[in-house]
Amino acid sequence: MTKKFNPVTPELLAELKNVLGEKYVKTDDDHLVAYQTDEEGNSYYFHKPEVVVFPGSTEEVAAVVKLANAHLVPLTPRSAGSGVACGAIPVYRGIVIELERMNKILTFDAENMYATCQTGVMTGDLQAEARKHNLLYAGDPSSAESCQIGGNVANNAGGNKAVKYGTTRHQIYSLKVVTPTGDIVDVGARLQKCSTGLCLEQLIAGSEGILGIITEVTVKLRPLPPYSFNMVCVFKSDEEAFALPNKILKAGIDPTSIEFMDNEALVMTCKFLDMPMPHVDDGCDYVIVTVETFDEGDSDRKMEKLCDLAEANGAIDVLEADARIWKLRKQFAEAARNIDMMFQTEDFVVPLDKIADITKQIPELREKYDLYCVTVAHIGDGNIHVLPLNVKKLSPEAWFEKIKTFHRDLFPRVYALGGKMSGEHGIGYKKKEEFSLCTPAGEVNMIKAIKKALDPNGIMNPGKLVDVD
Amino acid sequence: MTKKFNPVTPELLAELKNVLGEKYVKTDDDHLVAYQTDEEGNSYYFHKPEVVVFPGSTEEVAAVVKLANAHLVPLTPRSAGSGVACGAIPVYRGIVIELERMNKILTFDAENMYATCQTGVMTGDLQAEARKHNLLYAGDPSSAESCQIGGNVANNAGGNKAVKYGTTRHQIYSLKVVTPTGDIVDVGARLQKCSTGLCLEQLIAGSEGILGIITEVTVKLRPLPPYSFNMVCVFKSDEEAFALPNKILKAGIDPTSIEFMDNEALVMTCKFLDMPMPHVDDGCDYVIVTVETFDEGDSDRKMEKLCDLAEANGAIDVLEADARIWKLRKQFAEAARNIDMMFQTEDFVVPLDKIADITKQIPELREKYDLYCVTVAHIGDGNIHVLPLNVKKLSPEAWFEKIKTFHRDLFPRVYALGGKMSGEHGIGYKKKEEFSLCTPAGEVNMIKAIKKALDPNGIMNPGKLVDVD
Repeated sequence: MTKKFNPVTPELLAELKNVLGEKYVKTDDDHLVAYQTDEEGNSYYFHKPEVVVFPGSTEEVAAVVKLANAHLVPLTPRSAGSGVACGAIPVYRGIVIELERMNKILTFDAENMYATCQTGVMTGDLQAEARKHNLLYAGDPSSAESCQIGGNVANNAGGNKAVKYGTTRHQIYSLKVVTPTGDIVDVGARLQKCSTGLCLEQLIAGSEGILGIITEVTVKLRPLPPYSFNMVCVFKSDEEAFALPNKILKAGIDPTSIEFMDNEALVMTCKFLDMPMPHVDDGCDYVIVTVETFDEGDSDRKMEKLCDLAEANGAIDVLEADARIWKLRKQFAEAARNIDMMFQTEDFVVPLDKIADITKQIPELREKYDLYCVTVAHIGDGNIHVLPLNVKKLSPEAWFEKIKTFHRDLFPRVYALGGKMSGEHGIGYKKKEEFSLCTPAGEVNMIKAIKKALDPNGIMNPGKLVDVD
Repeated sequence: MTKKFNPVTPELLAELKNVLGEKYVKTDDDHLVAYQTDEEGNSYYFHKPEVVVFPGSTEEVAAVVKLANAHLVPLTPRSAGSGVACGAIPVYRGIVIELERMNKILTFDAENMYATCQTGVMTGDLQAEARKHNLLYAGDPSSAESCQIGGNVANNAGGNKAVKYGTTRHQIYSLKVVTPTGDIVDVGARLQKCSTGLCLEQLIAGSEGILGIITEVTVKLRPLPPYSFNMVCVFKSDEEAFALPNKILKAGIDPTSIEFMDNEALVMTCKFLDMPMPHVDDGCDYVIVTVETFDEGDSDRKMEKLCDLAEANGAIDVLEADARIWKLRKQFAEAARNIDMMFQTEDFVVPLDKIADITKQIPELREKYDLYCVTVAHIGDGNIHVLPLNVKKLSPEAWFEKIKTFHRDLFPRVYALGGKMSGEHGIGYKKKEEFSLCTPAGEVNMIKAIKKALDPNGIMNPGKLVDVD
């Protein structure tokens, strides 16, 4: 916290109002309190901004960035604020730049399968628009109904279709970006293939707002497979469950997703939803497999192959699932929140063949740190959400300290297996220290050099990912 | 050419020999002549290095880079030298660092579907090793038998399977890189999903050696589809041919590739191979569609659907193709080379819906610049190879001037349609000026800032992509 930023002055406020209009520059305490956090529930991390601004266009965003540079005031970009890594918390105060007014789908070209969205378009709205045209927008974070496309790109959001279609970065053609010095730059292009210049669009995607503000996103759309099915493979043993994805992938079944819920997660969520489900009371885990196809016969064959594989790998039951299964999977975070607003969603990711290696270390860590945890995981892509729940109602500081100690034991184990600490949530403010501890100096130095080169004044989302002197 | 580099001194040669061993440091004229060009046949571009070195390990590469920095001597990395953008030509002389000794597949894990290769592994060898294990390495440049994996990554090579599997950048998990200052850094990880730090592996991939030297590549392998078929759709009209890919993609046929050869390309290559093919004498074009599946029934259904689509879109014949078809497609460049070693492979890429718009401008340009051209294209991904052939045997300088004038007319037309000048070959030395002319200043500035930040002395492959002061 040694950055030398300037406070927001009355002169800067006047200039902001001049650019954006009086009503889009907010300094009342209701606004400052509302923007002191994002999805984070632990008040330990909260920081109030000095001002919240609501630009309506890329040009207005650029004007705000230029003012922030001129006044050396920190800037924190934000769309829906649904992130869980404190990425939109203004840790050095200054300006929060809220992009929710930029919420239009500017182009939707069904014939050529692409759309250009302003950054504040709700992800669920884009998905719905695509479906109307028999197309698929394949980015699908669990928070699709409450998150926005700009934030999805900035954090490289993952979600439930990543096994087949990749994460958000794999859905993008191009981005319109306001650089940390206030230039408007288009990176990427609506091309299937490109070897022209550096791959700036993939550098910006997932950069958590430290390299610029994304104001428009052109995404790929895909033909919507008309057939799909969900199977629940029920396992008594975690290890058998974790061995299944590799078998499914090698068999050419091409699943859209392979999800895991451990028994404690199932019990918690079934209770929260008051929705009993088979085998939950028998201590079993679920592996939920979703397959989409363009042909009914293809679906039938894949379902049969999948049943055979699951049974050969120790599943005690294989059930065709109805809509309840995704309700269960998606309401899991709400169920956790219902226990205590302060819970921690671990988000580490390991190679598929290391899932069992890391998860079998969790019971030891639970005991060592006296943590009650449930686990859900995108086991088709190695992304494990272990959720320590604050069942003992510790204070914000005590909970923060406990989680920090837990992380410093957990993450080196993840990295030793070739994993990384975040598969889809990002580092943000929350895991910045852990990131520097776990990441080799050479990589950190490259990140810092790029950050310094593109943001010489260090005003763009400071305090996130890495600290640059 | 105003860079202030130092010449290679006897002291530097002694230090290089000390690091690498006498026999891996070559200054004899045979070597210098051999390394004055890569696949480029026009002597106008040739530049002899002062020394060629052959490191055997990442550590030796790092030692060479550190020496080059200490002496301010330019460094040009090279693997197979099969590039066609003059990317491996040492335009400021200095050191060529030839990586062909680093040619081992270090890990081949069939169970977990990945391989780690040294940079000098032949792409065709990796493909063959994968096939032995019923796996697929999906990077497939037409030059697979003569190119190497490190160069493929550095140029983001495309090729013949990009419609389904993407280009080389989509095949990589991680890279080992020697930075321009001589640090050894691992970027990326063997993960399906990652939101931890910047996406440095995609920044390095396709950066044409200006941001570092790739010494190891960990690639994805995929299950090898056991069934495949090739169809040739024969068209009288280019425009009908170009409308087909979008229809195929929307129908969920999921083709591996969709290739186009115009009648002049067919005539030239059939003559070169002395291999008559149907409808070539009738002035027709070919669209070659390859489909791979995991199920025979699926293949049958897709073949039927494809025939229906092709006929509905004006194909005058649809033939199931044998092995000759890919011989024809892949030998096309040899056939061009047979006419004159100086030919130009254009490599521009446009959105699929703009292929007809750009190609119908080619006859006008041919006439205007008195050029004889043939065209092959990856029309499933919009990447068009128009090949002006030096049938009039112009001198190197005259040919260079003609092509430069042609480019300055062609590329603005490509960019006006949302395209870029290279889909898979890169910019290198050959198109550097055109790149700066066609690319908006904001993007060029970002590229220069990143280059300067990572290569403060500007020694790493200077004279390629952009010039930095």
